[in-house]
Amino acid sequence: MDSISLVGTVSIIVAGLTIAIGSIGPALGEGRALSEALNAMAQQPDEADTITRTLFVGLAMVESTAIYCFVISLIIVFANPFWDFVIQNAAP
Amino acid sequence: MDSISLVGTVSIIVAGLTIAIGSIGPALGEGRALSEALNAMAQQPDEADTITRTLFVGLAMVESTAIYCFVISLIIVFANPFWDFVIQNAAP
Amino acid sequence: MDSISLVGTVSIIVAGLTIAIGSIGPALGEGRALSEALNAMAQQPDEADTITRTLFVGLAMVESTAIYCFVISLIIVFANPFWDFVIQNAAP
Amino acid sequence: MDSISLVGTVSIIVAGLTIAIGSIGPALGEGRALSEALNAMAQQPDEADTITRTLFVGLAMVESTAIYCFVISLIIVFANPFWDFVIQNAAP
Amino acid sequence: MDSISLVGTVSIIVAGLTIAIGSIGPALGEGRALSEALNAMAQQPDEADTITRTLFVGLAMVESTAIYCFVISLIIVFANPFWDFVIQNAAP
Amino acid sequence: MDSISLVGTVSIIVAGLTIAIGSIGPALGEGRALSEALNAMAQQPDEADTITRTLFVGLAMVESTAIYCFVISLIIVFANPFWDFVIQNAAP
Amino acid sequence: MDSISLVGTVSIIVAGLTIAIGSIGPALGEGRALSEALNAMAQQPDEADTITRTLFVGLAMVESTAIYCFVISLIIVFANPFWDFVIQNAAP
Amino acid sequence: MDSISLVGTVSIIVAGLTIAIGSIGPALGEGRALSEALNAMAQQPDEADTITRTLFVGLAMVESTAIYCFVISLIIVFANPFWDFVIQNAAP
Amino acid sequence: MDSISLVGTVSIIVAGLTIAIGSIGPALGEGRALSEALNAMAQQPDEADTITRTLFVGLAMVESTAIYCFVISLIIVFANPFWDFVIQNAAP
Amino acid sequence: MDSISLVGTVSIIVAGLTIAIGSIGPALGEGRALSEALNAMAQQPDEADTITRTLFVGLAMVESTAIYCFVISLIIVFANPFWDFVIQNAAP
Amino acid sequence: MDSISLVGTVSIIVAGLTIAIGSIGPALGEGRALSEALNAMAQQPDEADTITRTLFVGLAMVESTAIYCFVISLIIVFANPFWDFVIQNAAP
Amino acid sequence: MDSISLVGTVSIIVAGLTIAIGSIGPALGEGRALSEALNAMAQQPDEADTITRTLFVGLAMVESTAIYCFVISLIIVFANPFWDFVIQNAAP
Amino acid sequence: MDSISLVGTVSIIVAGLTIAIGSIGPALGEGRALSEALNAMAQQPDEADTITRTLFVGLAMVESTAIYCFVISLIIVFANPFWDFVIQNAAP
Amino acid sequence: MDSISLVGTVSIIVAGLTIAIGSIGPALGEGRALSEALNAMAQQPDEADTITRTLFVGLAMVESTAIYCFVISLIIVFANPFWDFVIQNAAP
Repeated sequence: MDSISLVGTVSIIVAGLTIAIGSIGPALGEGRALSEALNAMAQQPDEADTITRTLFVGLAMVESTAIYCFVISLIIVFANPFWDFVIQNAAP
Repeated sequence: MDSISLVGTVSIIVAGLTIAIGSIGPALGEGRALSEALNAMAQQPDEADTITRTLFVGLAMVESTAIYCFVISLIIVFANPFWDFVIQNAAP
Repeated sequence: MDSISLVGTVSIIVAGLTIAIGSIGPALGEGRALSEALNAMAQQPDEADTITRTLFVGLAMVESTAIYCFVISLIIVFANPFWDFVIQNAAP
Repeated sequence: MDSISLVGTVSIIVAGLTIAIGSIGPALGEGRALSEALNAMAQQPDEADTITRTLFVGLAMVESTAIYCFVISLIIVFANPFWDFVIQNAAP
Repeated sequence: MDSISLVGTVSIIVAGLTIAIGSIGPALGEGRALSEALNAMAQQPDEADTITRTLFVGLAMVESTAIYCFVISLIIVFANPFWDFVIQNAAP
Repeated sequence: MDSISLVGTVSIIVAGLTIAIGSIGPALGEGRALSEALNAMAQQPDEADTITRTLFVGLAMVESTAIYCFVISLIIVFANPFWDFVIQNAAP
Repeated sequence: MDSISLVGTVSIIVAGLTIAIGSIGPALGEGRALSEALNAMAQQPDEADTITRTLFVGLAMVESTAIYCFVISLIIVFANPFWDFVIQNAAP
Repeated sequence: MDSISLVGTVSIIVAGLTIAIGSIGPALGEGRALSEALNAMAQQPDEADTITRTLFVGLAMVESTAIYCFVISLIIVFANPFWDFVIQNAAP
Repeated sequence: MDSISLVGTVSIIVAGLTIAIGSIGPALGEGRALSEALNAMAQQPDEADTITRTLFVGLAMVESTAIYCFVISLIIVFANPFWDFVIQNAAP
Repeated sequence: MDSISLVGTVSIIVAGLTIAIGSIGPALGEGRALSEALNAMAQQPDEADTITRTLFVGLAMVESTAIYCFVISLIIVFANPFWDFVIQNAAP
Repeated sequence: MDSISLVGTVSIIVAGLTIAIGSIGPALGEGRALSEALNAMAQQPDEADTITRTLFVGLAMVESTAIYCFVISLIIVFANPFWDFVIQNAAP
Repeated sequence: MDSISLVGTVSIIVAGLTIAIGSIGPALGEGRALSEALNAMAQQPDEADTITRTLFVGLAMVESTAIYCFVISLIIVFANPFWDFVIQNAAP
Repeated sequence: MDSISLVGTVSIIVAGLTIAIGSIGPALGEGRALSEALNAMAQQPDEADTITRTLFVGLAMVESTAIYCFVISLIIVFANPFWDFVIQNAAP
Repeated sequence: MDSISLVGTVSIIVAGLTIAIGSIGPALGEGRALSEALNAMAQQPDEADTITRTLFVGLAMVESTAIYCFVISLIIVFANPFWDFVIQNAAP
């Protein structure tokens, strides 16, 4: 049962840390872009539509790096090939 | 009982650290966006509606990275597949 | 009694660190937003109402990340499923 | 007596560190808000009342994250469920 | 005598570090607020009274986080429940 | 079974950390570029088309470094030559 | 003699580090306040009296956090209850 | 089988960390250059062609440092001379 | 002789580190105050006397935190109660 | 076979870290120079030729430090004298 | 001979680190003050005498913290009471 | 063979880290100087010759610190006196 | 021979690190002062003599902290009292 | 042969790290001074001679701290008294 608990604990640790560390960059980057967008709107209200459109396309791009982390994190929790292998071999 | 306490302790540690580390980025990012929004309102009071709307949509996007962390943290506490597996095998 | 004290000590450590680390981001973010709000009021006194309303809705959003940490911290102290499991199995 | 001293020492460490780390963010955030408030007053003396009121409501909100830490710290020292459990089981 | 020296040494370490780390944030925050207050006075001498009053109420609020640390530190040195328990049980 | 669990746990750890650390730089860089783009649009609305085009080509270039990390991370999880070798040799 | 040297060495370490770490924040904070005071005097020479008075009251408040550290440090060296207890019990 | 798993695990760790750490610098550098390019375009729309051309040649140069890391990372995964040597000697 | 060399080495380490770490804050703080004083003199030569007087009183206050460290450092080298106790008990 | 795997693993680690760490400085430095070049072009379009020429000669100079790292990294992977020596002595 | 070499090595380490760490703060602080002094001279050449005089008195005050470190460092090398005690007791 | 592999591995590690760490400072410094040179050219096109000449002489001086690191790194790989000594003594 | 190699290795480590760490502060401080001096000269060419004189006297003062480190470093290599003592006692 | 390889490996490590760490400060300091010199030239072309002369004298002074490190590094590689002593005693 040793290698099962080892792989299990490591999976828990990595699943948590991946999304925790991976949320710092996107959150700060999005915060910066958002704040500048609001600033730009105040300067040039007539361009609010273009600014909003560019903002959300850009935010989606930044968010994508957070989503890479979230995907890897969920793969590790629910579709972890190493865990599957270890369980199957330990079952019998 | 060894592997149970190991998986248990690791789950507690990761559940806490994930949300703790994961709250730093979003909180700073939201604080920055919010402060700039208030600044923009003071500069261009007539655009307060557009600014507020963009602000809250954007904040929701930033908040999403914090929520990814919260979701992973709750999964680890209440729907942890590794913990379930270890308990089931240790039960009999 | 070993696994009980292990889970117990880990719970204490994580409960404390989660809220300690988790308070840094929100506190700094709220401080920044608040300071900018006061600045905005001084620039545009007529908009004080809109600014205050947006400020407090925004602060509540930032505060939410601190509250996620507080919730996880209290769950770990008072409704910890791992601790409950370990106690029950150790009782008899 | 081993598990008692373990839980005891960990409680002392966490009680201290929780409030120590948890005081950094609020203190810096409050200092920033306060300094901007004084600046705003100097710019717009007529709005001193509104500024002061908003400042103190905001400071209370920032202070709340420090108080979360203080509460957890006091719970760990004086109402620690893990310590109570360990003492009761060790008593007889 | 082992658990006594363990609890004792840990108490000394935590008492010192709590106030040492806990003094960084408040000192920096107060320094910032104070410097801005002096700046504000130079800009708007007529408002010196309001500025001073707000400054000292605010400083007291920032100082409170340092005092939380000092309180916890003194509790650990002079009213430490864990130390009391360990001494009593070791006495006979 | 020892070398299998070793390679497995290391693969999980590295897969998570690679994308977690690798998302910080691109997210911050994209956030900065995006915020400046919105600022530029507000200054020169007539150039919105050129700015948007250059922005998205440039973002793609920055995103490429995040994608290198994601590729390496997926290779480690699903096409890991070291894991394949270790499993094959352990199978018989 | 073991627990005596342990408590002794720990007391020395903590006494030194407490004041060393605890002097960073106040020194930086006071330096900032002082530099701004001099700047304010140069801007508004007529207010030199008010500025000086506020400066020294404020510096005393910042200094207080350094003094908390110094007090704890001296208590640990000269009035350490844990050291007293350990010596008394080891004497006979 | 010991030296095989050792070299294998180390290869996985280094392959991931090399590209993860190596993506931070280029991503930040490119983000900075890109943001300044957009700023320059807004200031001098007539020079958009020269700016874009210089930007992409320069980005390629910055990207080259990320590509060095990617190359080393792929060499370690797919053309690792140390791994080849260890496998060959362990085969018979 | 073991506990003597332990206390001795720890005393040397702490004596050095206390003053080394403790000199960073005051030196930076004094450098900042001094530089601003010179700046203020250049702006307002007529106030040179008031500025100089305030500067040196303030520098003395900042220096005091360095002196706390120096005092603790010298106490540890030349009037260390723990060292005295250990030597006396080891002498006979 | 021990010293072979030791030298091999160390070579892999160093080859990766050298280029990973070594790419941070040049990438940031080049990004800065590039961004300033684009800024300069926007200010002084007539000097675009001189600026571009100086930029690329300078970038080559900055890139040289990255290339030193790449050279050392490749030497360690493909022309490592220590590895050659260890293999030759282990062969017979 | 054990305790002699222990005390000796520790003395060497601390002597070096004390002055190494202790030189960072004063050097940066003096560099800042010096640079501002030169700036002030360029602004107000007629006050060069007052500025120079204040500068050197202030630099001496900053230098004093470096000298505290140097003194402690030399005491540890050439007048170390712990070393003297250990040598005397080991001699016979 | 033990001391050979020890000296060998250490040589590899140090050769890589020396140039990796040593490239950070010069790359950043050169990037800064280069960016300012381009800025200066845009401000004063007539002085382009003097600026370029001073720039390259200065860059050579900054580069020299990177070259010191490269020299030490190559000495460690190809002309390492410690390695030569260890090989000669191990040969017979 | 054990204590000789211990003291020797420690002396080598400390000699190198002392000057390495000790060169960071002075180099940065001097670079700052020098850059400001050149700036001041450009602003006030007529004061070049006074500025140069003050600069070099000040640089000498900053350099002194680097020289303290160099002196301690050379003392440790060539006039190390601890090394002399250990050699003498080991000789016979 | 043990103490020889120990002293040898330590010498290699320290030789590399001394120059690596020691090159960061001077490179950054020189880059700053150089960039400001170019800036000054652009502002005051007529003073180019005085600026260049002061720049190179100052750079030599900053470079001296890098050269201290290089000297110590070469002494450790080629004129290391500890290594000489250890070799001589091990020879017979």
